[in-house]
Amino acid sequence: MPQNTTVNRRIVLNARPVGAPTAADFRTEHTPVPTPEAGEVLLRTLYLSLDPYMRGRMGDGASYAAPLAIGDVMLGGTVSRVEVSRHADFKVGALVLGYAGWQDYAVSDGQGLTPLYPDDPHPSRALGVLGMPGFTAYMGLLDIGRPVAGETVVVAAASGAVGSVVGQIAKLMGCYVVGIAGGPDKCRYVIDELGFDFCVDHHADDLPGHLAAACPKGIDVYFENVGGAVFDAVLPLLNTRARIPVCGLIAGYNATELPPGPDRLGLLAGTLLRKRIRMQGFIVFDDYGPRWSEFAGAMGTWVQQDKVKVREDLVFGLGNAPEAFIGLLEGKNFGKLVIQVAHE
Amino acid sequence: MPQNTTVNRRIVLNARPVGAPTAADFRTEHTPVPTPEAGEVLLRTLYLSLDPYMRGRMGDGASYAAPLAIGDVMLGGTVSRVEVSRHADFKVGALVLGYAGWQDYAVSDGQGLTPLYPDDPHPSRALGVLGMPGFTAYMGLLDIGRPVAGETVVVAAASGAVGSVVGQIAKLMGCYVVGIAGGPDKCRYVIDELGFDFCVDHHADDLPGHLAAACPKGIDVYFENVGGAVFDAVLPLLNTRARIPVCGLIAGYNATELPPGPDRLGLLAGTLLRKRIRMQGFIVFDDYGPRWSEFAGAMGTWVQQDKVKVREDLVFGLGNAPEAFIGLLEGKNFGKLVIQVAHE
Repeated sequence: MPQNTTVNRRIVLNARPVGAPTAADFRTEHTPVPTPEAGEVLLRTLYLSLDPYMRGRMGDGASYAAPLAIGDVMLGGTVSRVEVSRHADFKVGALVLGYAGWQDYAVSDGQGLTPLYPDDPHPSRALGVLGMPGFTAYMGLLDIGRPVAGETVVVAAASGAVGSVVGQIAKLMGCYVVGIAGGPDKCRYVIDELGFDFCVDHHADDLPGHLAAACPKGIDVYFENVGGAVFDAVLPLLNTRARIPVCGLIAGYNATELPPGPDRLGLLAGTLLRKRIRMQGFIVFDDYGPRWSEFAGAMGTWVQQDKVKVREDLVFGLGNAPEAFIGLLEGKNFGKLVIQVAHE
Repeated sequence: MPQNTTVNRRIVLNARPVGAPTAADFRTEHTPVPTPEAGEVLLRTLYLSLDPYMRGRMGDGASYAAPLAIGDVMLGGTVSRVEVSRHADFKVGALVLGYAGWQDYAVSDGQGLTPLYPDDPHPSRALGVLGMPGFTAYMGLLDIGRPVAGETVVVAAASGAVGSVVGQIAKLMGCYVVGIAGGPDKCRYVIDELGFDFCVDHHADDLPGHLAAACPKGIDVYFENVGGAVFDAVLPLLNTRARIPVCGLIAGYNATELPPGPDRLGLLAGTLLRKRIRMQGFIVFDDYGPRWSEFAGAMGTWVQQDKVKVREDLVFGLGNAPEAFIGLLEGKNFGKLVIQVAHE
């Protein structure tokens, strides 16, 4: 059923995935469009952000936030237009950044909504380079990674929402930047468009060998958003005093059990010790919330000056969100994955 | 052969240990006492420090410093008396801190020697609480661990040279401090003498259960100098934003291969991510050399005021160094292990 003005389509968690999510783990429901009370607004979703962290919320295991309940609307950052306003701070037609989730309409009391500029030509960027993924790249690289000009910075998922920004900031800092991406098209883009010094295709054989060849001086900063085989290739190349900001481990999100041995937990700890490495996880809004305006100022300038380039993987139609999300976990997206739910 | 003034006994690396070192990995040699040239001094070793890091130098695997060669004198920090001086800065009879290693005599050009106060009543403490182990405890806890009053700090090898100091500083910072030590005598000492709030005996069954019971609010700082089963017990108790300074992993130093699976490397990385944990290795003189005087001032005051208590495990006789060192790796020492090589 296409979007209309009386029915709210919403996609809910139908079942907890076992391994990779499948279409059956999602369910589309149709409900009446809600009516805002006094002090509330009705929001119409224009853009929905799809991000790897959502996989964690679909399970019931340990994560950094409470899991969704079965039947809950899938969560997600959104750019929405105010359709009806009974709230003094929001005018009809205004664009806001919020967390309406995977649905056409939502009611809000204004808490957690951030107004966007009315004439913003690219409002969906508030879900990417100018939003959570860009903030993640900025704080993780600069506050934990602390790159110094001339150092080697390696970033996986290099054409993705976070990795693409990490690498471009590292180039601005004067670093030698090596990306890791899946396939020749992404690698070409990472070098030719984003300006990385090198890109290793993890679809090719011998990732460890290619990465070693690409990093003749070892690795000073590894921005970790992947884990798995990529981290295995990075580990022996880490230099003394390397820094590893950890913002994601997408390679393991669909895992149902620990991989077979040997147990390398002690090997990792021993590497951190011998090489005096700092490895630190972070959740950007929890750890760096007060530095948002610093980020927004710096990144806004870089994007405006084309020093940080942006690529969106825009998929039209809320109904395509499950398939697009499943593909995201497999690395099928090329750039920041955004669902266009309605035309602006 | 006892010490005399014409023969230098020295203990050299005879063979690289496979697993735990044995007496056969060491060899005692007798050589003429060396003669200092102009600009040099002859040092007589009074105290020799034995520390777990020496195990790493005996192997030829990756460590944070070059390994010893077969036949090299075993390395180690020493307090020595100047026996002969042809160096303007050192008088005969002066006590100096240096790295003469496992031998009676050594010649030095003065590089790396630190004079001790002539009337120091406890010169061997320069090898422990007022030396490298104390500095390690101080910087690792304060700069990486960053304990805040009321937080829970856990330290393993709690009666040892580093752990005992970590816990006492954490108490001075107002933390709730839980030690882990081997056996009831050490645990009693850690609580009654050092003032820790609790101590878990890792010789008893169910370390994970006892540690969990001792840390009802979880763990905010874990000072890692052990690894192995202790870290396994710590891992699930770590709080959000916990800090893990890593200064040693003694439980694994004698390992000849990785333990069997499953592979928990990704589990550790995932825990760092979800709980936003900082885990960082450090080698104190490499990473914090410029802060030595800050440490020396603070620790000297604390020791003088009896706010940090000191226990040495003093073993007499250079010939006993191999057995004492082998015991150190098994946790047989009780306090800072020091070989008294000669009377003052």
